[in-house]
This record gives sequence, structure tokens and C-alpha cells, in this order.
Amino acid sequence: MKAKIAVFPGSFDPITIGHVDIVKRALPLFDKIIVAIGINSQKKSLYSLKHRMDCLNLVFKDMPEVETDFYEGLTINYCKQKSASYILRGIRSASDFEYEKTIAHLNNAMDEEVETILILSKPELSSISSTIVREIIKGKGEVSKFVPKEVLTSLYDFEV
Amino acid sequence: MKAKIAVFPGSFDPITIGHVDIVKRALPLFDKIIVAIGINSQKKSLYSLKHRMDCLNLVFKDMPEVETDFYEGLTINYCKQKSASYILRGIRSASDFEYEKTIAHLNNAMDEEVETILILSKPELSSISSTIVREIIKGKGEVSKFVPKEVLTSLYDFEV
Amino acid sequence: MKAKIAVFPGSFDPITIGHVDIVKRALPLFDKIIVAIGINSQKKSLYSLKHRMDCLNLVFKDMPEVETDFYEGLTINYCKQKSASYILRGIRSASDFEYEKTIAHLNNAMDEEVETILILSKPELSSISSTIVREIIKGKGEVSKFVPKEVLTSLYDFEV
Amino acid sequence: MKAKIAVFPGSFDPITIGHVDIVKRALPLFDKIIVAIGINSQKKSLYSLKHRMDCLNLVFKDMPEVETDFYEGLTINYCKQKSASYILRGIRSASDFEYEKTIAHLNNAMDEEVETILILSKPELSSISSTIVREIIKGKGEVSKFVPKEVLTSLYDFEV
Amino acid sequence: MKAKIAVFPGSFDPITIGHVDIVKRALPLFDKIIVAIGINSQKKSLYSLKHRMDCLNLVFKDMPEVETDFYEGLTINYCKQKSASYILRGIRSASDFEYEKTIAHLNNAMDEEVETILILSKPELSSISSTIVREIIKGKGEVSKFVPKEVLTSLYDFEV
Amino acid sequence: MKAKIAVFPGSFDPITIGHVDIVKRALPLFDKIIVAIGINSQKKSLYSLKHRMDCLNLVFKDMPEVETDFYEGLTINYCKQKSASYILRGIRSASDFEYEKTIAHLNNAMDEEVETILILSKPELSSISSTIVREIIKGKGEVSKFVPKEVLTSLYDFEV
Repeated sequence: MKAKIAVFPGSFDPITIGHVDIVKRALPLFDKIIVAIGINSQKKSLYSLKHRMDCLNLVFKDMPEVETDFYEGLTINYCKQKSASYILRGIRSASDFEYEKTIAHLNNAMDEEVETILILSKPELSSISSTIVREIIKGKGEVSKFVPKEVLTSLYDFEV
Repeated sequence: MKAKIAVFPGSFDPITIGHVDIVKRALPLFDKIIVAIGINSQKKSLYSLKHRMDCLNLVFKDMPEVETDFYEGLTINYCKQKSASYILRGIRSASDFEYEKTIAHLNNAMDEEVETILILSKPELSSISSTIVREIIKGKGEVSKFVPKEVLTSLYDFEV
Repeated sequence: MKAKIAVFPGSFDPITIGHVDIVKRALPLFDKIIVAIGINSQKKSLYSLKHRMDCLNLVFKDMPEVETDFYEGLTINYCKQKSASYILRGIRSASDFEYEKTIAHLNNAMDEEVETILILSKPELSSISSTIVREIIKGKGEVSKFVPKEVLTSLYDFEV
Repeated sequence: MKAKIAVFPGSFDPITIGHVDIVKRALPLFDKIIVAIGINSQKKSLYSLKHRMDCLNLVFKDMPEVETDFYEGLTINYCKQKSASYILRGIRSASDFEYEKTIAHLNNAMDEEVETILILSKPELSSISSTIVREIIKGKGEVSKFVPKEVLTSLYDFEV
Repeated sequence: MKAKIAVFPGSFDPITIGHVDIVKRALPLFDKIIVAIGINSQKKSLYSLKHRMDCLNLVFKDMPEVETDFYEGLTINYCKQKSASYILRGIRSASDFEYEKTIAHLNNAMDEEVETILILSKPELSSISSTIVREIIKGKGEVSKFVPKEVLTSLYDFEV
Repeated sequence: MKAKIAVFPGSFDPITIGHVDIVKRALPLFDKIIVAIGINSQKKSLYSLKHRMDCLNLVFKDMPEVETDFYEGLTINYCKQKSASYILRGIRSASDFEYEKTIAHLNNAMDEEVETILILSKPELSSISSTIVREIIKGKGEVSKFVPKEVLTSLYDFEV
């Protein structure tokens, strides 16, 4: 039987407890989940690729079925390269949904073999996003409720 | 390792090619999918429970990993009774999404062990629903593009 | 050159100034608009078919390019019977849109020759619907701002 | 200075902890909040008016600024009768929003003096609605997380 | 009794008649409304902070309960500094709603004491936004219907 | 009788088969459709204006009722200059709808003579947008299913 591999793509700028929750809940469904940073040379990130990879490695170090990685180009091509038949995505709101639908339909048009699996954010996590966390950090606010404790200090270090 | 069992609940009044597509695409993820008619005594169906079960049995007769069934009461209780850890749902639109979110959050509040997995309808199937098929049948229209060929004749027989 | 005929379908229970505005604005685009009551034997209307047809006739009596009618069965079949290549619809909100999209896609799947044309309600009319007008009338409220003046009295007559 | 009175209208069939949370959070803004059951003779309720009023009275008995009541006809007329300048509503989702917008705009068209004030449900309460609670009760499920503890027993008593 | 103070935050680039309408309608609810420009060093504004403050001062000069101000950092921190227990926001559409929900939930997670109060734009004002006004001004169009007359000339002066 | 002229505005960066489908389906309704590139000096395009005009000319060269052009400033002003009474737009999703509604209402506020006509994308084309096509091209993916064959090669030439 073919291994069930899912790619969980994102910019993870920075990773939030919302991301971690999706990975944990999806884990029993797959043999391996690859949490992968998609590099977008046109979008400026707050944290460096190195910093974001360090955070992923810290957060998932005790979950052997989770691999961390980064890639350039299309997610669908990266999936094929990693023999992943699934793309895993969390959704929080109707506007997330419209976006995911467009991306999933296009991935499907390019390669029918890769299936997108959507998991709903828990209600209490549905307002957390990397965008929001970045805004709070820039405004010197408190984000300890929104990011994994392993990476909390490093996020502020960066700001200094 | 625990078997991965998903319940795919619905009224299937009648089953459409949209339902069949979701089951086929989700099948590689699970060891078994139970396609189950939820009986709602307060909602009048166009087709009898017997007729709908016959349709399900016809449509899925060559897929050994698919089981068909019906149940009364809450879906979440039925899942526990069948040792199913997943509820499978297809979504077509943003309004479907709002509905699924509410149901999934409530199921989660009642039992954290059962996870809802959402799969997007393919674009060309995204306008097909049992409601629409019923309207066309009542208007004596042509539904052969929207329902599995195994059940097509029986749907009109019923109407006579 | 083929005449450009559009069907403007609805239950018109009762007709509102929102309906009239859509017809007036669309009129320059078409040679004829048929304002047609779709009869739905399963949905109970507040006003009788006769009453609703009388209202349509009163409201459009001075617009020679507007025809009034009623029909049973599918709108798409009625269009073919009337040689109409267009279905005209007004939309007010995102939820209207989702509904119209589903109907338009299905009509298209059944007959590629009939095209749905959408026109946006004006902002000040976007909260008016037959449903809302019925609720106000049942609650003995004032609807003179929401329905054509030609039919206003008859709507309350009905209620007595 | 004129007293700030708000009407919080609903069917409260049954009241949920979501309703109670909105009232508590809005209370500091107003001098009085009237929690009022709108009687809709065309919509069948699960609980009797008497039962629903008893629940409201129990739940709000220790909040002197909260009055309970019921009314027939339009909410806007009831507001005028009670000298209330505000309608208070909780919103949970984008589809709630579309509904509230329509109602608020119409109330405004009928009486410019009455203003609708919207308060967002807390994330963890955003999946709770009377509709959902009724479904769970009919399915013999557990609703203690969703309704005020003062009324919990009576909801099941009713079911027997 | 504690004074009821609300902050009405925005970029006001430029202020529109939609903003003014929200403030006027909300005024009876509060003892003071602080219309406050949030400075976002990463988002380039069309008008300078000085110009925007001058506009606010002109527009609200005859409303003694309205204060104008600007702030850096998080809105929630600014509220605490001003002893404001409320954030006031106008909403026009379902997509506005999703945005406001996310922000309100996060503000709530950071400080339970500050409540967000939403008021719906009037239908005829629901298409007006600062973004749209800026586009029209850049395109040399006419915006006198969309901005307060006190500031109209200065907006074009700026453009020259 | 006045000629029925519609402007189909966009950035066409690049043109997709979704755009072409809308023009073809709308053509029987109008005497002329002007496919016009709106120049936005503040938004950087992937393809030059020259390249985009060349593509439009190639794609529509065999449709005599289609004119191609470009313009600066407001679409509504361009319509008046071309004696066009209609703006034609395709819509794919609820979020497209909210955007089109805002623009249409504003155009209407500026000039009541120009009417916006909306046509729904076909389901199988509803995930195609210029934005998505650009992303795929940047990621070196395959876009032959999404753009007219006449322009396909030139899009990749550009990339080199």
C-alpha cells in the first residue's frame, strides 16, 4: 500500500498555534505530513527563511511523522517531487474558503492525482493568523496566546 | 493500528454524481466509508427510505470499502456506535461552508474524538445538489447528467 | 436579426418597486421582456395567482415591450417555448448571488442556448424583497415605500 | 436625558448561553434591555410561549436592568410602544450579517429613530444557536454546554 | 457612573460622509467618541497626517462630544490609555464583517474589557469607502456626493 | 435606434479563456463590445501595455463587433467618451460579487446613464483569473488550459 503523504504548505511567518492544531488533528489520517515553507520571492516576509525553518523544527521536533522543508515554485510540483498525494489546509472563514477553492480547483486542473483536504479551525483559534500575529508584534503587543511557546521569545528577539 | 472509518452522512434524496465523486476521491484516505442516510422524521423526503437505500446499494455495489446504512438521532452518536473517527463532507460554496462549520464545531463540542474532513466539489459538479435534482424531476426535466446512471430510471418511475 | 427576448421569472408575491426598477433598467437591452409568474404548487403564496397577475398587468400596462404571463414547470422549458434566449435576474446580495449562480449553471447544463443576465439592485432598493413586504403586511406595517403605488391598496384589501 | 432603552428580540426557542452573553456584554451601554419574544403565529415553536417566558424570567431574575416581555406584530412598532431607541442583535457569521442588514435597513426605512446595534458573538459561542440546540435535544444529545444551567432540566422535561 | 467612551479608529484617508454618519448615529449611545487616526508606518497614505487631522477637526468642530486624535501601535492599547471601553466600527458588507470579526475577537483575546460595537452603514452609503474616493480623485472624478462639504476643496487642492 | 455599446474593462494581464468566454456569450446582446485595458500607473503589471494590446488584437481579430482599446482615468468617463451605455463584467464568486457591487453602485452614483451588466462565469472556468495565471507562469507551470492558444507562446517568451 502506498504511503499517505500530505504537504501542509504556508509561509509560516510566523507559525501559530492554529497551524500546529491543524497538523496534530490531521496526523492520524496520514503516514507523513510535510510542513513546507513556500518561498515567494515577491512577498517580503517579516522573519527570514532561516528563522522560520528553525521555528518549524523546534515546534515539531517531537513528532516523528512530521517533516519540515521549504520549496520554490508551484506547490503542486513540490507535491509530485515528494510523492505526496494530498495537500492539507486549515480553513477559518468563508473568505478563506473562496481562496482555498480557487487554489484547489487549479491544482486539480494541473494534476488530478493530488487531492486537497480541508480541516476547520477550532472556533477559539479561528481569529488567529500569521498576518494578525505580525501586526500585534509590530505594535509591541502580547502574542503568547497565539504562538507555540517554543518560539515565543525568538519572535520578539527578532523585533529588537 | 486502528481502522480509519469515515461516515458520509446525508439524506441522499436522491443521490447525485456529486456525492459519488466525493466518496471516490476520499476512499484512498480511509479503510472504510459508511454512506449513511440520516432519518429526519420532521423533513418530508421525495423518495422513501427504502428507495434511497436501494439506490445507495446499487451505486456502491462494486466498492467493497463502502458500506451503506441509515440511522436516527445525532450523526455524532452514530459515529461512536460505528467506531468512526471521521465525518466526511463535500462542500460546494461559501454558504455550504458556513453550514458545515457550525455543524462541525458542534460535533466537536460534543465529542472531541470525531474529526470532520471537508473535500471540495469539482467545479463542474458544484451546482448539483439533491434539492436541484428534485426540482428538475418535479418539473419533468432531464437529470441524466446529474445522477448516477444506475438509479436514473427509478427516479422517474417514482414520479409516475 | 433574431428578436432579443428575456424572461424575468419570479413569484411576485407581491411585486415590489425593486422588480419594477430591474425591468425598466433592462428594457433598452431587449426587444421584449416577459415578466412571468412561475407557479410552484408546493409553495403556498400569500396572494392568489389571479391577484398577482392583476398587479403585474396594472404595473406594466404602459410599457408595450413588457409582456406578463405565468407558467408551470421549469423556467428553462418556458424560455424555449417563448423563444427567449435570456433569463433576466436582479441581485441584491452575496447570498442572492450564490443562489443565482446555482440556478444559472443548471439552466446552462440543460440548455446552452439560454443565457442568464444579472443586474444589480440599486443600493436604496437592496433591502426590499417580496418576503420582507409580506412580513410587514402581516404585521400591519406600512409598505407604501416598497411596492408600486398602483397595487398598494389591493395588497391591504387582500389582508382584510 | 432620555433613558437608553434597547429591545433584544428573538424567539428564544430556547434561550442559549449565546443570548445571555450578548445581553451581559451590552448591559453597560444601556439603561434597560428588554428581552422580548416575538410571537410568530406561522412558525411552530418547540417550546410554548409560557415555557419560554419562564426560562427568560429564571435566567435574568438577578439582573434588574433586564426586563422580559413578548409581543405580536412588527419589532419596530413594539420598540416605539416601549420608547426604545435601540434594537440589540448578536451576530455570529457572514450569513447572520446579511440577514441583520436587511432587517435593519427596513426598520430604518420605516422609522429613522430606531438604531440597530450589533455585537459579535465570542468565537467559542459562535456555533451555538437555538436551531442547533433544538436539533440536539430532539436527537437526545447533551446540551448542558449550550444553555443556561437554570433552564437545562426543563428543556428535557419538555421532551418527555 | 463611569463615562462611556468609544474610540472610532481608522485611517480617514480621506474621511467620507459614511464615517460622519456612523459617528452621528452612535453619538447618543456614548458620552464621548474619539475619532482617531491610527498611524501605520508601512501603509502609504494619499493625504498627510496633518491634512487628515485638519479634515477631522473641520468636520467635527461643532460636535463637542467628539474628540479627534491620532495614535501609533495597537488600537486596544490606545483604548486603555484613553479609558475607552468601546471600539466603534461601521460595517457595509459581508466582507467588512469577516474583517471586523477577526479584529474584534483578537482585541477581545488581548483585553476582555474593551467591547466592539458595530453599526450598519445606511444602504445609500454602503458603497462609499476611502479607497473608492481615492480612486475617483486620482481619476479626476467628482466626489462631492461622497465626502463632507467642509473638506471637499482641500481634497482636490492636494491633488494639484 | 441608438447603438448598444458595452465596455468590457480589465487589466488583461494576461487575457484568459474566461475573459474570451464572457465576450462571446455577451456579443449577441450588443452591437459592439469594446475590450479595453484600464491603465493603472500605480499597479505594476507583469506584461507591458503593448504586449497586452497585441494579445487582445490577436484573440479578437476575427470578431468584427469587438473593438480593442486602452484608457486612463475612470472607466465611467471612458464609457461616456465612447458613447457606451453598458459596462460588461464577468463574475465568478461571491467575493467578485461584492467588488462588482461596490464599483457598479459608484459608477451609478456618478452617472445614472451607464448600466452594469453581469454575466456568470461557467463553472469549469470559475477558478481561472489573470492573477492565478501569472502565479503559474512565474512558477514555470503549464497554462495552456487557461489562456487562448493564440497568445500562449508569447506569455512564456515574455518570461525568458
